[in-house]
Amino acid sequence: MKISHIEHLGIAVKSIEEALPYYENVLGLKCYNIETVEDQKVRTAFLKVGDVKIELLEPTSPESTIAKFIEKNNGNGGMHHLAFAVEDGVTDALAEVEEKGIRLIDKAPRKGAEGLNIAFLHPKSTLGVLTELCEKGE
Amino acid sequence: MKISHIEHLGIAVKSIEEALPYYENVLGLKCYNIETVEDQKVRTAFLKVGDVKIELLEPTSPESTIAKFIEKNNGNGGMHHLAFAVEDGVTDALAEVEEKGIRLIDKAPRKGAEGLNIAFLHPKSTLGVLTELCEKGE
Repeated sequence: MKISHIEHLGIAVKSIEEALPYYENVLGLKCYNIETVEDQKVRTAFLKVGDVKIELLEPTSPESTIAKFIEKNNGNGGMHHLAFAVEDGVTDALAEVEEKGIRLIDKAPRKGAEGLNIAFLHPKSTLGVLTELCEKGE
Repeated sequence: MKISHIEHLGIAVKSIEEALPYYENVLGLKCYNIETVEDQKVRTAFLKVGDVKIELLEPTSPESTIAKFIEKNNGNGGMHHLAFAVEDGVTDALAEVEEKGIRLIDKAPRKGAEGLNIAFLHPKSTLGVLTELCEKGE
Protein backbone atom coordinates (compact mmCIF):
# COMPACT_ATOMS: atom_id res chain seq x y z
CA MET A 1 0.00 0.00 0.00
CA LYS A 2 1.28 3.43 -0.94
CA ILE A 3 -0.05 6.30 1.16
CA SER A 4 0.50 9.69 -0.50
CA HIS A 5 -0.70 11.96 2.31
CA ILE A 6 -3.21 12.46 5.09
CA GLU A 7 -6.38 13.12 3.13
CA HIS A 8 -8.26 14.45 6.12
CA LEU A 9 -8.58 14.48 9.86
CA GLY A 10 -12.13 13.93 11.09
CA ILE A 11 -13.06 16.01 14.14
CA ALA A 12 -16.38 15.48 15.94
CA VAL A 13 -18.17 18.70 16.93
CA LYS A 14 -21.51 19.24 18.61
CA SER A 15 -22.39 21.99 16.15
CA ILE A 16 -20.65 23.18 12.99
CA GLU A 17 -22.09 26.67 13.52
CA GLU A 18 -20.54 26.83 16.99
CA ALA A 19 -17.24 25.34 15.82
CA LEU A 20 -16.55 27.45 12.73
CA PRO A 21 -15.78 30.72 14.56
CA TYR A 22 -12.86 28.94 16.28
CA TYR A 23 -11.52 27.41 13.07
CA GLU A 24 -12.05 30.51 10.93
CA ASN A 25 -11.56 33.47 13.26
CA VAL A 26 -8.99 32.05 15.69
CA LEU A 27 -7.00 29.63 13.49
CA GLY A 28 -7.59 31.62 10.30
CA LEU A 29 -8.66 28.61 8.21
CA LYS A 30 -11.45 28.83 5.64
CA CYS A 31 -14.47 26.55 5.33
CA TYR A 32 -15.00 25.84 1.61
CA ASN A 33 -17.75 23.20 1.68
CA ILE A 34 -20.55 21.94 3.90
CA GLU A 35 -22.45 18.80 2.99
CA THR A 36 -24.64 16.18 4.63
CA VAL A 37 -23.80 12.49 4.36
CA GLU A 38 -27.21 10.94 4.90
CA ASP A 39 -26.20 7.33 5.50
CA GLN A 40 -23.62 8.40 8.10
CA LYS A 41 -26.13 10.75 9.77
CA VAL A 42 -23.61 13.60 9.79
CA ARG A 43 -23.20 17.09 8.46
CA THR A 44 -19.62 17.77 7.42
CA ALA A 45 -17.70 21.03 7.02
CA PHE A 46 -14.34 21.10 5.25
CA LEU A 47 -11.37 23.39 5.78
CA LYS A 48 -7.96 23.03 4.16
CA VAL A 49 -4.59 23.38 5.88
CA GLY A 50 -1.54 22.57 3.75
CA ASP A 51 -2.39 19.38 1.84
CA VAL A 52 -4.71 18.09 4.58
CA LYS A 53 -8.41 18.69 5.02
CA ILE A 54 -10.02 19.10 8.40
CA GLU A 55 -13.47 17.51 8.30
CA LEU A 56 -15.78 18.74 11.06
CA LEU A 57 -18.48 16.15 11.77
CA GLU A 58 -21.77 17.16 13.36
CA PRO A 59 -24.35 14.46 14.19
CA THR A 60 -27.74 14.85 12.50
CA SER A 61 -29.34 12.14 14.66
CA PRO A 62 -28.77 10.69 18.16
CA GLU A 63 -28.12 7.36 16.39
CA SER A 64 -25.14 8.79 14.52
CA THR A 65 -21.79 7.26 15.49
CA ILE A 66 -20.63 10.86 15.97
CA ALA A 67 -23.40 11.48 18.52
CA LYS A 68 -22.27 8.37 20.38
CA PHE A 69 -18.62 9.46 20.24
CA ILE A 70 -19.52 12.84 21.77
CA GLU A 71 -21.66 11.17 24.44
CA LYS A 72 -18.80 8.82 25.43
CA ASN A 73 -16.44 11.81 25.48
CA ASN A 74 -18.41 13.49 28.29
CA GLY A 75 -20.37 15.61 25.84
CA ASN A 76 -17.26 17.02 24.16
CA GLY A 77 -16.05 16.90 20.58
CA GLY A 78 -12.58 15.71 19.70
CA MET A 79 -10.44 14.02 17.07
CA HIS A 80 -12.47 11.15 15.65
CA HIS A 81 -10.65 9.54 12.73
CA LEU A 82 -7.57 9.76 10.53
CA ALA A 83 -7.91 9.30 6.77
CA PHE A 84 -5.04 8.38 4.48
CA ALA A 85 -5.11 8.84 0.71
CA VAL A 86 -3.93 5.61 -0.94
CA GLU A 87 -2.44 5.69 -4.43
CA ASP A 88 -3.16 2.14 -5.48
CA GLY A 89 -6.89 2.11 -4.76
CA VAL A 90 -8.88 1.28 -1.66
CA THR A 91 -9.93 -2.21 -2.83
CA ASP A 92 -6.34 -3.39 -3.19
CA ALA A 93 -5.30 -1.65 0.03
CA LEU A 94 -8.07 -3.41 1.98
CA ALA A 95 -7.00 -6.81 0.64
CA GLU A 96 -3.39 -6.06 1.56
CA VAL A 97 -4.03 -4.91 5.14
CA GLU A 98 -6.52 -7.74 5.80
CA GLU A 99 -3.85 -10.20 4.64
CA LYS A 100 -1.59 -8.59 7.27
CA GLY A 101 -4.11 -9.31 10.01
CA ILE A 102 -5.91 -5.96 10.22
CA ARG A 103 -9.62 -6.13 11.08
CA LEU A 104 -11.82 -4.21 8.63
CA ILE A 105 -14.99 -2.26 9.37
CA ASP A 106 -15.73 -2.01 5.64
CA LYS A 107 -14.96 -5.08 3.53
CA ALA A 108 -15.37 -3.02 0.35
CA PRO A 109 -15.12 0.71 -0.43
CA ARG A 110 -18.24 2.85 -0.14
CA LYS A 111 -19.04 6.48 -0.98
CA GLY A 112 -18.00 9.13 1.54
CA ALA A 113 -18.21 12.92 1.59
CA GLU A 114 -16.78 14.82 -1.39
CA GLY A 115 -17.30 11.82 -3.68
CA LEU A 116 -14.42 9.82 -2.21
CA ASN A 117 -14.30 6.03 -2.13
CA ILE A 118 -13.64 5.21 1.50
CA ALA A 119 -13.27 2.29 3.90
CA PHE A 120 -12.59 2.15 7.63
CA LEU A 121 -10.17 -0.11 9.48
CA HIS A 122 -11.13 -1.20 12.99
CA PRO A 123 -9.44 0.75 15.80
CA LYS A 124 -8.78 -2.51 17.67
CA SER A 125 -6.30 -3.31 14.90
CA THR A 126 -4.88 0.18 14.51
CA LEU A 127 -3.75 0.93 18.06
CA GLY A 128 -6.87 2.89 19.02
CA VAL A 129 -6.92 5.24 16.02
CA LEU A 130 -10.04 4.88 13.86
CA THR A 131 -8.41 4.83 10.43
CA GLU A 132 -9.91 5.47 7.00
CA LEU A 133 -8.40 4.72 3.61
CA CYS A 134 -9.65 6.77 0.69
CA GLU A 135 -9.21 7.60 -2.97
CA LYS A 136 -10.88 10.01 -5.37
CA GLY A 137 -14.07 8.56 -6.90
CA GLU A 138 -14.65 8.33 -10.64
CA MET B 1 -2.13 34.05 12.84
CA LYS B 2 -1.00 32.33 9.68
CA ILE B 3 -0.96 28.53 9.81
CA SER B 4 1.09 26.99 6.99
CA HIS B 5 0.32 23.32 7.59
CA ILE B 6 -0.27 20.60 10.15
CA GLU B 7 3.21 20.15 11.59
CA HIS B 8 2.36 16.88 13.30
CA LEU B 9 -0.34 14.71 14.74
CA GLY B 10 0.51 13.34 18.18
CA ILE B 11 -0.66 9.77 18.76
CA ALA B 12 -0.39 8.13 22.19
CA VAL B 13 0.87 4.54 22.14
CA LYS B 14 1.60 2.14 24.96
CA SER B 15 4.85 1.06 23.33
CA ILE B 16 6.70 2.43 20.31
CA GLU B 17 8.19 -1.01 19.68
CA GLU B 18 4.72 -2.54 19.54
CA ALA B 19 3.32 0.31 17.42
CA LEU B 20 6.01 0.57 14.73
CA PRO B 21 5.20 -2.71 12.94
CA TYR B 22 1.70 -1.36 12.22
CA TYR B 23 2.93 2.02 10.98
CA GLU B 24 5.86 0.63 9.01
CA ASN B 25 4.74 -2.79 7.75
CA VAL B 26 1.00 -2.21 7.34
CA LEU B 27 0.81 1.50 6.43
CA GLY B 28 4.22 1.53 4.76
CA LEU B 29 5.46 4.67 6.53
CA LYS B 30 9.06 5.02 7.72
CA CYS B 31 10.25 5.99 11.19
CA TYR B 32 13.18 8.41 10.78
CA ASN B 33 13.80 9.54 14.36
CA ILE B 34 13.25 8.41 17.93
CA GLU B 35 13.99 10.74 20.81
CA THR B 36 13.12 11.17 24.48
CA VAL B 37 11.68 14.45 25.75
CA GLU B 38 12.67 14.27 29.41
CA ASP B 39 10.50 17.07 30.78
CA GLN B 40 7.40 15.61 29.08
CA LYS B 41 8.26 12.09 30.28
CA VAL B 42 7.75 10.67 26.79
CA ARG B 43 9.68 8.82 24.12
CA THR B 44 8.70 10.00 20.65
CA ALA B 45 8.99 8.31 17.25
CA PHE B 46 8.52 10.29 14.05
CA LEU B 47 7.18 9.18 10.69
CA LYS B 48 6.42 11.44 7.73
CA VAL B 49 3.35 11.28 5.51
CA GLY B 50 3.02 14.04 2.91
CA ASP B 51 3.96 17.29 4.66
CA VAL B 52 2.74 16.05 8.05
CA LYS B 53 4.64 14.16 10.72
CA ILE B 54 3.06 11.49 12.85
CA GLU B 55 4.53 11.67 16.34
CA LEU B 56 4.08 8.47 18.35
CA LEU B 57 4.21 9.23 22.07
CA GLU B 58 5.12 6.53 24.59
CA PRO B 59 5.05 7.36 28.31
CA THR B 60 8.35 6.90 30.17
CA SER B 61 6.70 7.29 33.59
CA PRO B 62 3.24 6.68 35.08
CA GLU B 63 3.17 10.45 35.83
CA SER B 64 3.42 11.31 32.14
CA THR B 65 0.33 13.03 30.71
CA ILE B 66 0.47 10.34 28.01
CA ALA B 67 0.23 7.58 30.63
CA LYS B 68 -2.82 9.35 32.07
CA PHE B 69 -4.37 9.74 28.61
CA ILE B 70 -3.98 5.99 27.96
CA GLU B 71 -5.39 5.16 31.40
CA LYS B 72 -8.48 7.35 30.79
CA ASN B 73 -8.85 5.75 27.36
CA ASN B 74 -9.42 2.28 28.87
CA GLY B 75 -5.78 1.34 28.42
CA ASN B 76 -5.73 2.17 24.71
CA GLY B 77 -3.68 4.60 22.70
CA GLY B 78 -5.31 7.11 20.37
CA MET B 79 -4.99 10.54 18.78
CA HIS B 80 -3.68 12.89 21.45
CA HIS B 81 -2.95 16.31 19.97
CA LEU B 82 -2.90 18.32 16.76
CA ALA B 83 0.04 20.63 16.05
CA PHE B 84 -0.07 23.52 13.59
CA ALA B 85 3.01 25.21 12.17
CA VAL B 86 2.60 28.99 12.48
CA GLU B 87 4.48 31.30 10.16
CA ASP B 88 4.58 34.41 12.31
CA GLY B 89 6.06 32.86 15.43
CA VAL B 90 4.52 31.15 18.44
CA THR B 91 4.88 34.16 20.78
CA ASP B 92 2.79 36.42 18.53
CA ALA B 93 0.30 33.63 17.83
CA LEU B 94 -0.23 33.03 21.56
CA ALA B 95 -0.87 36.74 22.16
CA GLU B 96 -3.34 36.81 19.28
CA VAL B 97 -5.36 33.76 20.32
CA GLU B 98 -5.40 34.79 23.99
CA GLU B 99 -6.77 38.19 22.91
CA LYS B 100 -9.53 36.22 21.15
CA GLY B 101 -10.47 34.48 24.39
CA ILE B 102 -8.57 31.20 24.01
CA ARG B 103 -7.23 29.68 27.23
CA LEU B 104 -3.53 28.83 27.07
CA ILE B 105 -1.71 25.91 28.69
CA ASP B 106 1.65 27.53 27.90
CA LYS B 107 1.87 31.30 28.30
CA ALA B 108 5.19 31.32 26.44
CA PRO B 109 6.85 28.95 23.96
CA ARG B 110 9.02 26.15 25.28
CA LYS B 111 11.26 23.53 23.64
CA GLY B 112 9.58 20.43 22.21
CA ALA B 113 10.86 17.41 20.31
CA GLU B 114 12.97 18.02 17.18
CA GLY B 115 14.08 21.43 18.49
CA LEU B 116 10.72 23.10 17.84
CA ASN B 117 9.37 26.02 19.84
CA ILE B 118 5.97 24.87 20.98
CA ALA B 119 2.99 25.92 23.08
CA PHE B 120 -0.30 24.21 23.86
CA LEU B 121 -3.79 25.71 23.84
CA HIS B 122 -6.32 24.35 26.32
CA PRO B 123 -8.79 21.81 24.87
CA LYS B 124 -11.62 23.53 26.77
CA SER B 125 -11.12 26.47 24.37
CA THR B 126 -10.49 24.42 21.24
CA LEU B 127 -13.62 22.24 21.13
CA GLY B 128 -12.01 19.23 22.77
CA VAL B 129 -8.92 19.02 20.54
CA LEU B 130 -5.65 19.49 22.43
CA THR B 131 -3.92 21.93 20.08
CA GLU B 132 -0.25 22.83 19.78
CA LEU B 133 1.29 25.74 17.91
CA CYS B 134 4.88 25.36 16.79
CA GLU B 135 7.70 26.87 14.80
CA LYS B 136 11.24 25.80 13.97
CA GLY B 137 13.71 26.74 16.72
CA GLU B 138 16.86 28.79 16.08
